[in-house]
Amino acid sequence: MRTSIATVSLSGTLAEKLDAAAAAGFDGVEIFENDLVASPLSPEEVRDRAAAAGLTLDLYQPLRDFEGAPPERFAANLRRAEHKLRLMARLGISCVLVCSSVAADTVADDDLAAEQLRTLAGRAAAYGMTVAYEALAWGRHVDDYRHAWRIVAAADHPALGVCLDSFHILSRGADPAAIADIPGEKIFFVQLADAPRLPMGVLHWSRHHRCFPGQGDFDVAGLLGYVRRAGYAGPLSLEIFNDEFRQADARRTAVDGRRSLLVLEEAADGAPLPPVAPPEGYAFAELSTPDTAAPARLLTALGFTRTGVHPGKPVELWEAGRARILLNTGAVDGVATPGDSTPPGLPAGGAPDVAALGLEIAEPDAAVERARALLSPVLPRRRAARDVPLRAVAAPDGTALFFCRTRAPGAPSWTDDFTGVLDDADAPEPPAPAGITAIDHVALAQPSHRFDTAVLFHRGVLGLRPAEPYDVPDPYGLLRSRAMATPDGALRLVLNESHVGGPAQPNRQHVALASDDIELTARRLRAAGLALPIPDNYYDDLEARYDLGPDRHRRLRELGLLYDRDGDGEFLHLYTVPAGHVLIEVVQRLGGYRGYGMGNASVRLAAQRNVG
Amino acid sequence: MRTSIATVSLSGTLAEKLDAAAAAGFDGVEIFENDLVASPLSPEEVRDRAAAAGLTLDLYQPLRDFEGAPPERFAANLRRAEHKLRLMARLGISCVLVCSSVAADTVADDDLAAEQLRTLAGRAAAYGMTVAYEALAWGRHVDDYRHAWRIVAAADHPALGVCLDSFHILSRGADPAAIADIPGEKIFFVQLADAPRLPMGVLHWSRHHRCFPGQGDFDVAGLLGYVRRAGYAGPLSLEIFNDEFRQADARRTAVDGRRSLLVLEEAADGAPLPPVAPPEGYAFAELSTPDTAAPARLLTALGFTRTGVHPGKPVELWEAGRARILLNTGAVDGVATPGDSTPPGLPAGGAPDVAALGLEIAEPDAAVERARALLSPVLPRRRAARDVPLRAVAAPDGTALFFCRTRAPGAPSWTDDFTGVLDDADAPEPPAPAGITAIDHVALAQPSHRFDTAVLFHRGVLGLRPAEPYDVPDPYGLLRSRAMATPDGALRLVLNESHVGGPAQPNRQHVALASDDIELTARRLRAAGLALPIPDNYYDDLEARYDLGPDRHRRLRELGLLYDRDGDGEFLHLYTVPAGHVLIEVVQRLGGYRGYGMGNASVRLAAQRNVG
Repeated sequence: MRTSIATVSLSGTLAEKLDAAAAAGFDGVEIFENDLVASPLSPEEVRDRAAAAGLTLDLYQPLRDFEGAPPERFAANLRRAEHKLRLMARLGISCVLVCSSVAADTVADDDLAAEQLRTLAGRAAAYGMTVAYEALAWGRHVDDYRHAWRIVAAADHPALGVCLDSFHILSRGADPAAIADIPGEKIFFVQLADAPRLPMGVLHWSRHHRCFPGQGDFDVAGLLGYVRRAGYAGPLSLEIFNDEFRQADARRTAVDGRRSLLVLEEAADGAPLPPVAPPEGYAFAELSTPDTAAPARLLTALGFTRTGVHPGKPVELWEAGRARILLNTGAVDGVATPGDSTPPGLPAGGAPDVAALGLEIAEPDAAVERARALLSPVLPRRRAARDVPLRAVAAPDGTALFFCRTRAPGAPSWTDDFTGVLDDADAPEPPAPAGITAIDHVALAQPSHRFDTAVLFHRGVLGLRPAEPYDVPDPYGLLRSRAMATPDGALRLVLNESHVGGPAQPNRQHVALASDDIELTARRLRAAGLALPIPDNYYDDLEARYDLGPDRHRRLRELGLLYDRDGDGEFLHLYTVPAGHVLIEVVQRLGGYRGYGMGNASVRLAAQRNVG
Repeated sequence: MRTSIATVSLSGTLAEKLDAAAAAGFDGVEIFENDLVASPLSPEEVRDRAAAAGLTLDLYQPLRDFEGAPPERFAANLRRAEHKLRLMARLGISCVLVCSSVAADTVADDDLAAEQLRTLAGRAAAYGMTVAYEALAWGRHVDDYRHAWRIVAAADHPALGVCLDSFHILSRGADPAAIADIPGEKIFFVQLADAPRLPMGVLHWSRHHRCFPGQGDFDVAGLLGYVRRAGYAGPLSLEIFNDEFRQADARRTAVDGRRSLLVLEEAADGAPLPPVAPPEGYAFAELSTPDTAAPARLLTALGFTRTGVHPGKPVELWEAGRARILLNTGAVDGVATPGDSTPPGLPAGGAPDVAALGLEIAEPDAAVERARALLSPVLPRRRAARDVPLRAVAAPDGTALFFCRTRAPGAPSWTDDFTGVLDDADAPEPPAPAGITAIDHVALAQPSHRFDTAVLFHRGVLGLRPAEPYDVPDPYGLLRSRAMATPDGALRLVLNESHVGGPAQPNRQHVALASDDIELTARRLRAAGLALPIPDNYYDDLEARYDLGPDRHRRLRELGLLYDRDGDGEFLHLYTVPAGHVLIEVVQRLGGYRGYGMGNASVRLAAQRNVG
């Protein structure tokens, strides 16, 4: 499969865009006209620079309102076309894209459109070039790919074919099945874009909210299946208008785009990627903290025991049930790839609070191979000579993901790296249990412009599925939130992106622990003075919303528990006060509740502000 | 007129919102339920805090999907209502808002809706409270205010009336004239919101893009006229859901809101504000610059003469025709009100490049009085004892606006403060003229979240009218741009807000000078090596777009002039390379061209990147 990307999808100068596309491994690019017009590079320099980088120049789209034009405008169109065909010859581009006309004076006459396109195809053929005609979703008279194909078929010129764009087809809900009926050799180009379902006009939607396949809600893989059946073998090109992409780092965006095509190809063609090695839960969460005093007090109140220390690094292992927390007071392995800026809302210059996650995976090597095939950075592991080998990749937010098997029979376990302390004379008494059983989920703060990257990464590399995005009101803005989980719910993750002003708040990410007795957990935390106080107003409102009986309402209020329910069950949760950089949530799922208590998130965020 | 604002319109904690509303002079607030639920203040504390600040609590809206409910849900609704009425009694709020139901199981039965609302009104009346029923634009069965009024009239309960919300009425294009037919005493509440026309569903539009009256595209004043004719005399309340407001400084937002109501009242009621004193052009632009060497070289090339220096401040006056530039190497008067952050894209810690503007106004005192009445900060003027008095206000971006009469016969002129230098022995030769006649417009960079504030300020205080907003692609993002001008075009202003990543760029604001011979201007700048180079690709494209004849195309290319045209005329412009912090555009308007060459802006931004 040849891959291409339109330069409008990437940020920067034209030269930077070419470099980014080449570095990510694309075979070619579409040159977006405005990028060329604004560039100090001559067409010949653009051509040579692309060739030197191993890129073909696949498409140019300099024409607007071409077909169905009244005579005078058509004459001007042809004049412009001659200019642009000469320019394309200098660039070495052989295919010109014509989008269906939107001008108010466009004539609704398919014969005229066919005739005008045939004329253009003749001019292009004289240069050895071809014309690809595409139906815009908001075209004046031609807004459906089947209509565009009828006109192309009627024009019947060897240098004229159609261009298919998944956004224009799927945004209007058109059935892509008829693509399979177009002769493959008459499909001259295919552009792929996804988009979230948004309640807005297609033009506005297209200009601002397109995204890479797999980042949105369209069945782009299904469409690609019909393209394959038609026999199309040309490039698949990403043409993404997105306000965030315009500002994001071009090299990252280009890698995202390539990754999206790899995942898409797997879905549509069964292309040979290493299969998903599904995570079965969290092996550990590693928290970066300047000192351990406050976190240790918090973990002790939660019934954790310090079960080990690393002999070569300032890292402690704490355990409660299957919940394992590493407290790291030193530099954290592999985090923060060079050039990353600090995520907003996190302490300037500091590492993320959640610096690394251990994922329980039956075949860690398979997981690494899939991540590597999907262009994820595999982290160099600085480990002590005797450490158990452990492989890791970097998530787009800089979090290190370690693929682990914890204490599997007959296999080395990462926990063996830690020297037991329970036999030490100065080991404290094991604390009273507090109900904690495991890590339920982890909430990770995402840097600006990297949210969709993260969704695609976790979907592609780990096989997680995203829930609907959710905007949580913070007192000073909105937190964009999206949960992802394995289909079986064994691994749950929440991605948060902050759009918040006001006073800085250090904690934007946290670890949520599962408890099988959250009332016990709450009592322990309250006794230690470490529970986040929830306003009484919340409980007054809860009583108005749900009739849970006076006893239950009283207990929730006394224990500071938040409550939610859905069709499948109930959800109780609480937050601790921040202990240094460390913030903990505790949850208890009753019945088949699958959510995250998102409806309580704004109360929690405000309560965190209340304690500073 | 009593004024109110919903707490959801403001950023911060509930306490901060109350303080901001009071400081801006509102009479009351609507308590948004989520703000109360998340607050650590008890209802009684909220009541007392508002009272101490001189605020009434005017409305509460804790009920959803109330009317048209199936029996079981209606019972739950009444149960919830009882809870909330008790809460309102504690808060001291006497009016409860009921929005029309959106739930899928809502029964389309006006008699049932009337009966259920009558029941609620009876419950409310028992507490001495009233119920205001409002049609949501996306209500399941009731989505029009006339429908809501029919149901209220049918219910016929003294404690039941309607609430009117301008967004819900105007977003759907409903004719507001029938408001005048509702008895004034049955209109229990009026909420006012404006919005830009956006191509999206009303729910999404309402939740994210509402703005204060005068900031959007709705005729809110026209609607208010019908409300007045109906005889309504209750509060006018601002209920604005806006993602930017959520992040913005609450005190500024509250002042904005009050200002919007003052301007609205003037438009609807002819309320006695001091009339607009229309600006007749720019008296001067004051540029903040660390040193004058580079700017002086640039101004000299443009044919400016240094005509004066201030005896008491490091400020030079430069003139060319009616174009006057002040170069200020010291602290700039009155700029940057305390607490302002530096606008993005400007040098950290630095003043804006354009620090102050002199506006030519026949009655400067009247302009100050209007600005003061519209809650604008009047700047203390630190002036030397012998300076001509000059009064100024601060624009929302921190730019000082001085109201001037320049060299009017028989009146003192601010130019008299400058000591002439032309007779000095060391005065340079006057430079060769370069065609400059006046200041055409000024482009000001706006800080985040203050764009709509600026539009309202310039509209209300100076009587400028906004053009359509325009998104300019920068290589690393988008520049949101909006031009404003007096109806006669005598004063033109462009507001820019940066949504741009990538390498920092110092110059986001500039002064555009008018030339009556831009080819001459261009030759002078090129001779001095100070013209911003425009890529050849731009001229290749221009030839494809317009047939201007070979001679004209050649001259444009040789002189590096940008070209635009509209129905009324043609526009030629160029940019200088930045000289220190100072960036100059030169424009020549031919015929009645009224624009700003926005279509060339992305080429210009890229060209500025090219010169670093």
